[in-house]
Amino acid sequence: MAATLGELAGYVDGSVRGDPACVISGVATLQNAKDGDITFLSNPRYIRYLSTTAASAVILSQDHVSVCRANALVAADPYLAYAKIAGFLLPQRAPASGRHPSAVIDAAAEVHPSACIGAHTVIEAAVRIAADVVIGAGCVVARGSDIGAGSRLVANVSIGEGTRIGKRALIHPGVVIGSDGFGFANQAGRWLKVPQLGAVSIGDDVEIGANTTIDRGTLDDTVIEDGVKLDNQIQVAHNVRIGAHTAIAACTGIAGSARIGARCTIGGGVGIVGHTEIADDVHITGMSFVAQSIREPGLYSSGTPLEPNREWRKNYARFHQLDDMARRLRRLEKTLKERDAE
Amino acid sequence: MAATLGELAGYVDGSVRGDPACVISGVATLQNAKDGDITFLSNPRYIRYLSTTAASAVILSQDHVSVCRANALVAADPYLAYAKIAGFLLPQRAPASGRHPSAVIDAAAEVHPSACIGAHTVIEAAVRIAADVVIGAGCVVARGSDIGAGSRLVANVSIGEGTRIGKRALIHPGVVIGSDGFGFANQAGRWLKVPQLGAVSIGDDVEIGANTTIDRGTLDDTVIEDGVKLDNQIQVAHNVRIGAHTAIAACTGIAGSARIGARCTIGGGVGIVGHTEIADDVHITGMSFVAQSIREPGLYSSGTPLEPNREWRKNYARFHQLDDMARRLRRLEKTLKERDAE
Amino acid sequence: MAATLGELAGYVDGSVRGDPACVISGVATLQNAKDGDITFLSNPRYIRYLSTTAASAVILSQDHVSVCRANALVAADPYLAYAKIAGFLLPQRAPASGRHPSAVIDAAAEVHPSACIGAHTVIEAAVRIAADVVIGAGCVVARGSDIGAGSRLVANVSIGEGTRIGKRALIHPGVVIGSDGFGFANQAGRWLKVPQLGAVSIGDDVEIGANTTIDRGTLDDTVIEDGVKLDNQIQVAHNVRIGAHTAIAACTGIAGSARIGARCTIGGGVGIVGHTEIADDVHITGMSFVAQSIREPGLYSSGTPLEPNREWRKNYARFHQLDDMARRLRRLEKTLKERDAE
Repeated sequence: MAATLGELAGYVDGSVRGDPACVISGVATLQNAKDGDITFLSNPRYIRYLSTTAASAVILSQDHVSVCRANALVAADPYLAYAKIAGFLLPQRAPASGRHPSAVIDAAAEVHPSACIGAHTVIEAAVRIAADVVIGAGCVVARGSDIGAGSRLVANVSIGEGTRIGKRALIHPGVVIGSDGFGFANQAGRWLKVPQLGAVSIGDDVEIGANTTIDRGTLDDTVIEDGVKLDNQIQVAHNVRIGAHTAIAACTGIAGSARIGARCTIGGGVGIVGHTEIADDVHITGMSFVAQSIREPGLYSSGTPLEPNREWRKNYARFHQLDDMARRLRRLEKTLKERDAE
Repeated sequence: MAATLGELAGYVDGSVRGDPACVISGVATLQNAKDGDITFLSNPRYIRYLSTTAASAVILSQDHVSVCRANALVAADPYLAYAKIAGFLLPQRAPASGRHPSAVIDAAAEVHPSACIGAHTVIEAAVRIAADVVIGAGCVVARGSDIGAGSRLVANVSIGEGTRIGKRALIHPGVVIGSDGFGFANQAGRWLKVPQLGAVSIGDDVEIGANTTIDRGTLDDTVIEDGVKLDNQIQVAHNVRIGAHTAIAACTGIAGSARIGARCTIGGGVGIVGHTEIADDVHITGMSFVAQSIREPGLYSSGTPLEPNREWRKNYARFHQLDDMARRLRRLEKTLKERDAE
Repeated sequence: MAATLGELAGYVDGSVRGDPACVISGVATLQNAKDGDITFLSNPRYIRYLSTTAASAVILSQDHVSVCRANALVAADPYLAYAKIAGFLLPQRAPASGRHPSAVIDAAAEVHPSACIGAHTVIEAAVRIAADVVIGAGCVVARGSDIGAGSRLVANVSIGEGTRIGKRALIHPGVVIGSDGFGFANQAGRWLKVPQLGAVSIGDDVEIGANTTIDRGTLDDTVIEDGVKLDNQIQVAHNVRIGAHTAIAACTGIAGSARIGARCTIGGGVGIVGHTEIADDVHITGMSFVAQSIREPGLYSSGTPLEPNREWRKNYARFHQLDDMARRLRRLEKTLKERDAE
C-alpha cells in the first residue's frame, strides 16, 4: 500500500507541515527510516534522532514540529496516529487457509467453512469454531469449546474443555486456557483435589501473549472481559475477573478470585493476592505486590530501589530494625518534649 | 449422580441440620446455586450470601449454622467436606481411550494396553507407559521415560529423556519436564556448557500446573516427592528437591540445588535462592525472597507495601538512607544519654 | 569413552596428584561417585564429602588437595575443567536423524539434507534450515525463518515469521520466539494494536531455556547477541537487545527496548524496566528490580529480607513511615544542634 502524506493526515485527523503530496509506502523507526518511510516521535527520549532521520515524514505532536526537518504529520496523539497508519499501510498477510489434512477434527465439531485449521491441530467433539477463525499449527482445542468469529490461535495453543472465546481474539503460541485451578483441601497432611468445574469465559477483542496461562474456575467461571490485553507469561488463577479494556504487562500473577476493574493498566511482574478487589482505572507500576484491595483509582507502586550490592547489604539488614527504629525515634521525640516541658 | 443430604453427611462424617431426605445432584457457589445444589461456606468473606442462597443445602462449620436458612451439612472442615462431595457427585469424565492413529509410538516403547495416547503425540524408544495412563494430544515423551499407572498428561506436554513420573500424576498443558539445567562454566568470558546428565524423578500423586518447568539434574536427579502440588508457571531448577506433600503457588522460582522440606506451603511469585535448605512445615507468603536457609518451621514473609505512587516515591528514595538513619538514630540516643550523665 | 587421569589432566591443562594411570569412564557427584568415576569440588559447601567419596579421582583447586584422599586432578578452575571433561567423556547422543514422515514441510522451504525434522513438526514456506540442524517433535517454524547450522530445537518450540537464529543454538521445549510485542495505543479508552513488524535476530551459540518467550520488534528487531544464555521462563519484550555472552537466570522479565550489555550476569526473577540501558559487565542479584539505567559495571541488588511473619508485619507497616521518619530524625538532630548552640 502507498498513500500521500495528505491522505494519511486525513485518515488520522492530523495536519501536514511540509509537502502533502509526498508519497509514503513504509514505516520505520527514526533511526532506520529511509526515503518513502513515515516514522513517529512519541517518547521524548528519541528526540535526538529528529534532526538526522532520513524519513520522508514524521508523525509528531505540535510541540516538536519546530525541531523536525522532514515533512511533519502533526497529530494530537502521535503514537495512536502511527498505529492507525501502520495498520493501514501494512495490512497483515492472511495466514494459510483451509483445513490442513493432518488436522484431527472430530466429526461432532462444528467448524465454519471459512475457518482455517492448521497442521497437526486437534479439534475435539462439540467444539464450535465460527467464521474466519484461524487456528494455527499444533493447537489442541478440547471438547465443548467455542471460538468466536475472526479469532486467531497462532500455534501450539492449548484450550481446555468448555472454554468460550469471543470475537477477534489473538492468542499467541504456548498459551494455556482452561487448565485446572489450584484448589486442594488438606486432609491430615495430604492434599485432596477440589474438582475444578467452572470454565473460562473470554470477551471480544482480547489479546493473550505467549505462554500466558488462564485457569478454569472452581465452580463459576474465570472471566476476561472485552478488550483486555494480556502480555506474555501472565498467570490468571481460577475465578479471577479482569474488567474490560484492562492491559497487563508480562510476568504478572493474579491469584484466585481477585477482581480487577475496567481500564486498569498493570505493569510487569506484579503479584496480586487472592480475593482482592481492584477498582476501575487503577494503574500499578511494575514488580509491585498488591496484598490488599485497592478501592480508589490512581497510580500505585511498591518495591525498593536497586543499589550497588555493598550499600544494599547494609540497608537490607536494617530493614529488620525498622519497627524498632520507629519506636526509638518516637521515644527520643518524647524525651526531648518532656525536657522542654521541665 | 445424586444423593440425599443425609447420605452425603454420612460420606463426610458430618451432621445434618434440616431435611436429611433432601436430594442433592449438583454443586455451585453460594451466589449461583439453585434448587438441588449443595454449596459451602469456608471463607467468612462470603458469609453475606448465606441468607439469600437458593441452594438446597450448605456445608458449613458449627459456627455458622445459626445464620443459615437452607439445610445445613455441618462439618469440621467445610472445604474438605465440599471437596469430597464434589468428587463424589461429579466424577471426572474419562478422556477418549485407545491410541489415536496419528500418534507416533516407537516400536521399542512399552505402552500398556489400557493406556490412551492422544492425537499427534510422540512416544520415543524405551519409554514405559503403565496401565490407565492418559497422554493427551500433542505431547512428546522422550526416550527412556517412565510414566506410572493412572497418570495423565493433558496436552502439549514435553517430557525429556529418562524422566520418571510416579502414579496418578496430573500434568497440565505446556509443562516441560527434563529440560537441561542452567549450568555453564566461564572460559575467558565465554560460557562452556556443563552437560546435564541427571534426570527428573517425580513421586506419586503429584499435580503440575500449566507451563511449569522442571529441569533435569546436572549429575544426580531433580526430585519431586510424593503428593507435591505445583501450580502454573513454576520454575524448578536442576537438583532441587521438593519434599512430600508440599504445595507451591504459581510463578514461584526455585534455583538450583535448593532443598525444600515436606508439608511446606509456598505462596505465588516467591524466589528461592540456590543451595538453600528449607525445613519441613515452613510456610512462605507470596512474593517473598528467600535468600537464606530456613531452619525452623513457621510462617515467613518479605516485601514492602503497596502505596499511592506519590508516597511510595518518597519512601522508596529513603530506603537508600536506611543504614545511615539507623546510625544517626543510635548517635542521637548516645548524645542524649551522655547529657543525662553529665 | 574412557581415559586415564593423566590424559584428562593434559586435556584441561591440570596436574595429577596420585595415579595418572587410573582409568576414568564416568562422572558423578562427590556423594554418589563410584569406582571409575571422576568428580569435582567447586562449591566449598560440599568439602565435607571429600574424605568419604568413592570416586577414582576428584578435580579440585590447589587449596583443597591436602584434604583429598582420592587421586586429585588439580586445576585452576575445577568447575571449568569438570565441564570440559564431562563433555569429553560423555558426548551427547545424536538425536534421530532424517525427516519423520509426519513432519509437514512446505515445498518452498529449503531444508539441508543433513537436517533432522521430528514427528509432527511444521516447517512453513521460505524457511531455511542449515546443515546438521535438529528440529525435534511438535515444533512450528513459521514462514521465512532461518535456522543456522548445528542448531537444535528440542520439542514443541514455536518460531514466528522471519526469525533468524544463528549457529549451534540450543532451544528447549516450550520456547516461543517471534510472538507479537505488547504494543497498543489508547483510543478513547480502547486499545488499538500497533502492528509488530520487526523480527527476532539471534546470534551464534545461544541457549534458550524451557518456556522462555522472545517477542518480535515493533519496527526494528529484538536482538540476542552471540553466546547469550537464557534460562527457563524468561520474558524478552520487543526491541530488547541482549549483549554477547550475557547469562540470565530463570523467571527474569525484560521490558520493551531495554538494552543489556555484554558479559552481564542477571539473577533469577529480576525485573528490568523498559527503555533502560545496562552497561557491560553488570551483575544483578536475584529478584532485583531495575527501574533505571545502570551506567557502571559492578554488582547490584535490591529487595528486603525474609522474616518470621510476625516481625515482618511490623516492619512492613513501618515502610509507609520511612520518609516521615527521615524528616523527624533530621528535625531531632537540628533541635539538638540548636540547643548546643544556645
